[in-house]
Amino acid sequence: MQEATLCDAQDGLAPFREKFMLPAGMIYLDGNSLGALPKATPARLQQVITQEWGQDLIQSWNKHQWLDAPLRIGDKLTRLLGARPGEVVVADSTSINIFKLLSAALPLRPERRVILADSESFPTDLYMVQGLIQLLGQDYRLRLVATEALSHALNDEVALVLLSQVNYKTGALLDIAQITTQAHDAGALIVWDLAHSCGVIPLELTAWNVDFAVGCGYKYLNGGPGAPAFLYVAHTHQATVQPLLSGWLGHVEPFSFVTEYHPAPGIRRHLCGTPPILSLLALECGVDLLLEADLHAIREKSMALGDFFIAQMTPLGFSLASPRNAEDRGSQVAFRHPQGYAIIQALIAEGVIGDFRAPDILRFGFAPLYVSFSDVAQSVAILHDIMATGRWDQPAFHQRQTVT
Amino acid sequence: MQEATLCDAQDGLAPFREKFMLPAGMIYLDGNSLGALPKATPARLQQVITQEWGQDLIQSWNKHQWLDAPLRIGDKLTRLLGARPGEVVVADSTSINIFKLLSAALPLRPERRVILADSESFPTDLYMVQGLIQLLGQDYRLRLVATEALSHALNDEVALVLLSQVNYKTGALLDIAQITTQAHDAGALIVWDLAHSCGVIPLELTAWNVDFAVGCGYKYLNGGPGAPAFLYVAHTHQATVQPLLSGWLGHVEPFSFVTEYHPAPGIRRHLCGTPPILSLLALECGVDLLLEADLHAIREKSMALGDFFIAQMTPLGFSLASPRNAEDRGSQVAFRHPQGYAIIQALIAEGVIGDFRAPDILRFGFAPLYVSFSDVAQSVAILHDIMATGRWDQPAFHQRQTVT
Repeated sequence: MQEATLCDAQDGLAPFREKFMLPAGMIYLDGNSLGALPKATPARLQQVITQEWGQDLIQSWNKHQWLDAPLRIGDKLTRLLGARPGEVVVADSTSINIFKLLSAALPLRPERRVILADSESFPTDLYMVQGLIQLLGQDYRLRLVATEALSHALNDEVALVLLSQVNYKTGALLDIAQITTQAHDAGALIVWDLAHSCGVIPLELTAWNVDFAVGCGYKYLNGGPGAPAFLYVAHTHQATVQPLLSGWLGHVEPFSFVTEYHPAPGIRRHLCGTPPILSLLALECGVDLLLEADLHAIREKSMALGDFFIAQMTPLGFSLASPRNAEDRGSQVAFRHPQGYAIIQALIAEGVIGDFRAPDILRFGFAPLYVSFSDVAQSVAILHDIMATGRWDQPAFHQRQTVT
Repeated sequence: MQEATLCDAQDGLAPFREKFMLPAGMIYLDGNSLGALPKATPARLQQVITQEWGQDLIQSWNKHQWLDAPLRIGDKLTRLLGARPGEVVVADSTSINIFKLLSAALPLRPERRVILADSESFPTDLYMVQGLIQLLGQDYRLRLVATEALSHALNDEVALVLLSQVNYKTGALLDIAQITTQAHDAGALIVWDLAHSCGVIPLELTAWNVDFAVGCGYKYLNGGPGAPAFLYVAHTHQATVQPLLSGWLGHVEPFSFVTEYHPAPGIRRHLCGTPPILSLLALECGVDLLLEADLHAIREKSMALGDFFIAQMTPLGFSLASPRNAEDRGSQVAFRHPQGYAIIQALIAEGVIGDFRAPDILRFGFAPLYVSFSDVAQSVAILHDIMATGRWDQPAFHQRQTVT
């Protein structure tokens, strides 16, 4: 505990904790699933609701730049993504955006019929591919391989590769630059899911030559539950990639109300329907707060928190499911335990919020802007006590609930 | 004006006006585009943000039933739609939901290749079809016809018919029961877009044998800007219609994290990604308020407001673009004028909010829960004065802005 106090005292990001509303008596290690509430958000949303919606009503689309918000927030995100202005837009959900990008990118490789993905992808990524393939017919297929076999599975049948930078269960981190080059060398294009990395790992999509990417607003971006997602299309592909979820806000002139779809130039064509403004502007608060911090400092602290957690856990006999080396991990650490579900419930009952991923993963996320080293030390102490006393083994903790 | 005062005095819905936050000095005739703010919404959203998100964080998915919200609100909507519980879910945008239903319904008519639609549909409906058809290839095509030619265009090539009950420009109202029967007689299935009717016209989707429907949360449902949309699938089709935008929340066991998609039974399969909770729960406030009112009384008042408006407008020389008979109209009245754009800007400058739809339509919507007969009389008096003095003809009023 002394070591934790020392680390906290030296933590340059510590002041950010005060910018979040954190519940008293809770240690929140699930910011990788739903980020915490920035203190600025409630007042901003109250303003959006009572003034912009309530008083200015329909005029707010122009007067308060609601119409510009998806691109404005997208441009802010380019700073986290190492992308160029005009390459990112906020819209819809990660699932929908995956469908958008895959369906729009396939025609760039018309002779190829395989979408290659990691069998350990977050399932919705795979489900969206399955739906798209069913819709397309024509011998399109999804090829699932284990992470370590990815490079061997790249051949001239592969049109697109769909990968998550960070494994949602284990936190294992892939090398975007290297794999993107391998995909390109095989003639394929690549779509990266950055749900578990954007906002917590410095990214260089331009430098890494990434074609397409999607990501999530409600994890490390602290955008609120179900916040809209984002999508990125590299400058070089923007003119050639035509949206097939072709809604009116992606039209070149949405207010001309013509019957034929013509896509807008640039990234705006990937907008579809009218965006959920309340959720969208809550996301902007989270992004603005994140942009005040140095992303490299965030990454340093994230790795240190994870290492500290693993070191503290070692004597407890859980089996580490995450890479031991911090450079190879995202901002979460996972352990396996056959009784993982009940143990997580016991932890939650005592105010330590981690989560469980079937079949046996206990997952702990470290959001460096509001998690301290003392939080980590205290969590492990509580877990230790729960295991030592066996008080995880109660009927209530074995009852399954849905959690996201 | 005396007549208006009399009508207001006899208006059984008049007390509902107090349940909305309406800006002082504004007459809002654009509830057909963005509904007004219910007074209950800001406090509820503050609770959702500070308590549910801020304090209970990830646990709110269960503890505060976030996970159930799309179906719970959908079930509430069945009362406005004349549908059965379990036939409606709230999700995504109207555009996305159109794509979902069309793509999922086409396999029910595997030998047919035509999607038939009204050439005066709100453009995004047509754009979504165009994208889908481009994706499908295989000789699928969109056949656009004028409203009056719809029944003649129905033949054995038509797989699906996509229609709006209310024409977004003119307010012309189609007979759902009759057209649905015609479509079925021709062996086609039908998707109704209820964006401009749900919440203001009593609907009987079950009695009318409607196959599929979508609609909008931010117009007469007063759900807030860009509120999530809804979709309806008739009980009879639910087991056979398989989602192709197949996201994780539509999976039979979303938290089993298996790699293969298996759709949930019932309407839940049409969920895709994680819903934007803030916008979703704001919508619920609007729906709850609407359910306090009698939908038939709403329709009566809506027709009376429209008739009253038309009667007042007659001497001004605008040309009526809407049906004269209230039974044939939705809750909006449109007039044509070659200088419509500038005239609407002049009206807005004086606090009367209508909107403009290219090329020459002035559109006024009457949301019966918060628009009074006095509002209508006063609006026409202001318009009269604007026309009589010619003060619409100022350079500022001719400058085009985007409005939604």
